[in-house]
Amino acid sequence: MSFQSIQQTFLNLRSHKVFELFIVSVIIFSALMVGAKTYELSDSLSSLLVWLDWGITLLFLIEIVIRFLGEERKINFFKNGWNLFDSLIVLVSIVPIDNSEIAIVGRLIRIFRVLRMISIIPELRLLLNSLLKAMPQLGYVVLLMFIIFYIYAAVGTTFFAHINSELWGDISISLLTLFRVMTFEDWTDVMYETMEHYSLSWIYFITFIFFTAFAFLNMVIGIVVNVLEEENQRVKEESDKEQGKATLEDLRAEIRELKSLIQSTTK
Amino acid sequence: MSFQSIQQTFLNLRSHKVFELFIVSVIIFSALMVGAKTYELSDSLSSLLVWLDWGITLLFLIEIVIRFLGEERKINFFKNGWNLFDSLIVLVSIVPIDNSEIAIVGRLIRIFRVLRMISIIPELRLLLNSLLKAMPQLGYVVLLMFIIFYIYAAVGTTFFAHINSELWGDISISLLTLFRVMTFEDWTDVMYETMEHYSLSWIYFITFIFFTAFAFLNMVIGIVVNVLEEENQRVKEESDKEQGKATLEDLRAEIRELKSLIQSTTK
Amino acid sequence: MSFQSIQQTFLNLRSHKVFELFIVSVIIFSALMVGAKTYELSDSLSSLLVWLDWGITLLFLIEIVIRFLGEERKINFFKNGWNLFDSLIVLVSIVPIDNSEIAIVGRLIRIFRVLRMISIIPELRLLLNSLLKAMPQLGYVVLLMFIIFYIYAAVGTTFFAHINSELWGDISISLLTLFRVMTFEDWTDVMYETMEHYSLSWIYFITFIFFTAFAFLNMVIGIVVNVLEEENQRVKEESDKEQGKATLEDLRAEIRELKSLIQSTTK
Amino acid sequence: MSFQSIQQTFLNLRSHKVFELFIVSVIIFSALMVGAKTYELSDSLSSLLVWLDWGITLLFLIEIVIRFLGEERKINFFKNGWNLFDSLIVLVSIVPIDNSEIAIVGRLIRIFRVLRMISIIPELRLLLNSLLKAMPQLGYVVLLMFIIFYIYAAVGTTFFAHINSELWGDISISLLTLFRVMTFEDWTDVMYETMEHYSLSWIYFITFIFFTAFAFLNMVIGIVVNVLEEENQRVKEESDKEQGKATLEDLRAEIRELKSLIQSTTK
Repeated sequence: MSFQSIQQTFLNLRSHKVFELFIVSVIIFSALMVGAKTYELSDSLSSLLVWLDWGITLLFLIEIVIRFLGEERKINFFKNGWNLFDSLIVLVSIVPIDNSEIAIVGRLIRIFRVLRMISIIPELRLLLNSLLKAMPQLGYVVLLMFIIFYIYAAVGTTFFAHINSELWGDISISLLTLFRVMTFEDWTDVMYETMEHYSLSWIYFITFIFFTAFAFLNMVIGIVVNVLEEENQRVKEESDKEQGKATLEDLRAEIRELKSLIQSTTK
Repeated sequence: MSFQSIQQTFLNLRSHKVFELFIVSVIIFSALMVGAKTYELSDSLSSLLVWLDWGITLLFLIEIVIRFLGEERKINFFKNGWNLFDSLIVLVSIVPIDNSEIAIVGRLIRIFRVLRMISIIPELRLLLNSLLKAMPQLGYVVLLMFIIFYIYAAVGTTFFAHINSELWGDISISLLTLFRVMTFEDWTDVMYETMEHYSLSWIYFITFIFFTAFAFLNMVIGIVVNVLEEENQRVKEESDKEQGKATLEDLRAEIRELKSLIQSTTK
Repeated sequence: MSFQSIQQTFLNLRSHKVFELFIVSVIIFSALMVGAKTYELSDSLSSLLVWLDWGITLLFLIEIVIRFLGEERKINFFKNGWNLFDSLIVLVSIVPIDNSEIAIVGRLIRIFRVLRMISIIPELRLLLNSLLKAMPQLGYVVLLMFIIFYIYAAVGTTFFAHINSELWGDISISLLTLFRVMTFEDWTDVMYETMEHYSLSWIYFITFIFFTAFAFLNMVIGIVVNVLEEENQRVKEESDKEQGKATLEDLRAEIRELKSLIQSTTK
Repeated sequence: MSFQSIQQTFLNLRSHKVFELFIVSVIIFSALMVGAKTYELSDSLSSLLVWLDWGITLLFLIEIVIRFLGEERKINFFKNGWNLFDSLIVLVSIVPIDNSEIAIVGRLIRIFRVLRMISIIPELRLLLNSLLKAMPQLGYVVLLMFIIFYIYAAVGTTFFAHINSELWGDISISLLTLFRVMTFEDWTDVMYETMEHYSLSWIYFITFIFFTAFAFLNMVIGIVVNVLEEENQRVKEESDKEQGKATLEDLRAEIRELKSLIQSTTK
């Protein structure tokens, strides 16, 4: 059996629907295990979970190897960010962790295995990509929003730091407090406290809420319009393709030909 | 009077507007009774309600029978989910409940009678169907959102369980707490508590809010675009029908015919 | 000077921009007075306000009379709901109120004068009309939402009335509590209280939030789509008017004429 | 070297990408300094910050002078609002502030320097302009909303002032309380307090929430529709330009010419 045919076998295996479904089931099972571990368990169950955990790690390792061997040009495997992510998750899982201090890393790695759901299901990968692609278009609105936040945080710290240092102590705490105000979370408590010292401080809060709400609204509308525009673009291209057979311009050319034909015959 | 004509009578009755309006009134009356029972009532009124309740059950029973008899092919009656729902509600209402333990079931059944409003008014049934039809299209966004929730809940339980077991005790409690955070309900209280132990835990909460808000926004926009697309599709089909009489391609064909005609005459 | 010419004078006066602006100023001034009265005022200022108040009532009376006299067919005056509203406001203002018990009515009437802003500014009247027109289209979604609310309120009262009668005492209190939950206002406090008795009651709250959020979303999207549809309809009609000069069908007819012309010449 | 060429040099400098990037870096650095000052700093660091601050002021001064000299017609410089804003910020920074009472002004000026980010980055300036341009179209909805707020505030003060003067004391306090209710911030606490005196006061709150929510929704939809309309307008103009070469009307004219041509030949 040649190397070529082995690779072909792996390639077929990798693309097989059953293989994919099996891996998804393993990921779901590993997610359930992550959840189960947050409950208090009997000793026997705990040790069973440890064994199952190693089983899952092994399955993931085999899957990665299959996908690696199934790749025609090995370099392409490493060009895909999701492959790297999968490999990292599996490799770190294999490293034995005895030191209790970094045991937390082991637990986190097992949690992040759930993210493999995204790397394995193409529709989720597509969705995430489209979400990420929408990001840069929002760049300037986010920048504007951050400028609003930063200025209000600086002003807030200047005026309110001596009133309640837990909310306005320095600029990073103030930024957190302002985020809280933006989510309307007990924002009146924050405001009433400052109004006892500066009776006009409601202006600070009301204007902040208006500015951020307006900027946020614009962001949302920006996304909606972007999405609709792409949609329209897609529709237009389709209808162009459909109609593409004859344009008004084509017709005009034909009519002109006709005319010259008639003129030549009458001469 | 033949069986056929009896069935026709029931069919006519069933489709009669007055019959429908009468049933809707009975349902509204039964809803008002459900509401009335939550108030403290005098004994005489209470026993009156019991009698009225049997009256409503009887009316519903008669209505179901009429609708069943009015059906030409009896099997079709059971193919309709709403008919099954109606029959079940009525049948359970008839069962006499003496045991106080399952008396609650009887009360619930009387409450769910209000749902018959949806089964009887075609517009509501249509609306509900269109809502349900929008569901599967949201499938992957909901899955992505659940993955985000699950990972954050697992991480939250790992780190915060020892701080407040009532909020982060196990993964299901953590999921509930995260849903609370997503609705901005006193989320800063939850955050401040964890920040006393891990001063950087605000990253956990802010990123969670951003991810879920972003995914939620995408879901909303997804629905809007879906609805508009269907709308556009409908409009396009209509305008296709209108214009359908002549296309540019048709015109071109006609002009070409003309040309060949002229060429043949001049030869 | 004939009656006809007097009426014409009033008609001109009524439609005069300066007259409208003057009335708007009076309304704004009356609104400011309403606001001023909520502050503690010196005696002299208070009596000044009483005099100003009578002045405003007089001006409004004169305005109504002018508008009434300026109407060609008197019956049309009463057909306009806004005219009736204005007249009522002015008439009740004139009635002297000595009895302190109904003094509150006099104060409320003075507040509702601010609503005259809507009756006097055409753009606001238009806006309000378009808002009201959007209402009936939402009818069935609102009905569906009310059914959800009613069923949940009945279930809530059945199960939670003995836990906290202030929140779940009877069906109307439960409806208010559920509205509170829908606005996410301390809804977890309400939930945690019930979870002490029924540990699964979170299902009740989470499903309620999902159902209402979904129905609300649908309402919003319904409005958006309605508005866009009207917009598209308007655009389409406009473009139909623009293009209306020649259709493909017209062209086809002309080409066919040509063909028959050529065929007749060659015979 | 002539004055003309010096000006040209400044003009080139001003438009140079590196110059712009340098100024943006200085603004970001000045923003970081504003943030740093909110933390407790050692004496040496504090005095370093004072020196750096003077450095930034100097750089800004030089930049303004360059931009002024680079302007061909000096009067145009002052016609640009952003130039005036920049100059003001720099000039006030230069004024030495010894008096501790107005030291706060100096601090605020340094904070508002961050706004120069908007004046220097064209995309942000464009975004802000488009936000401001959307404002007037919202005029009447905002006016309607303010009328709703004002009437409810007046009614609220009339009825609830004696219950809690901190929330309903006078009309401005009531307006603030109503804004709080609109953001759903502990609005049930406010309502329950008034319901102890007037058991029907929930009508006041629920209707207020409905009216403002409805008006707000309309505002959002108004913006969305406006944006989409502009978008459609833009698309339409583009497609008009593309197609502009031949219209159906043109074709008709050509066919008619053909017809007359044929008719003339057959005579």
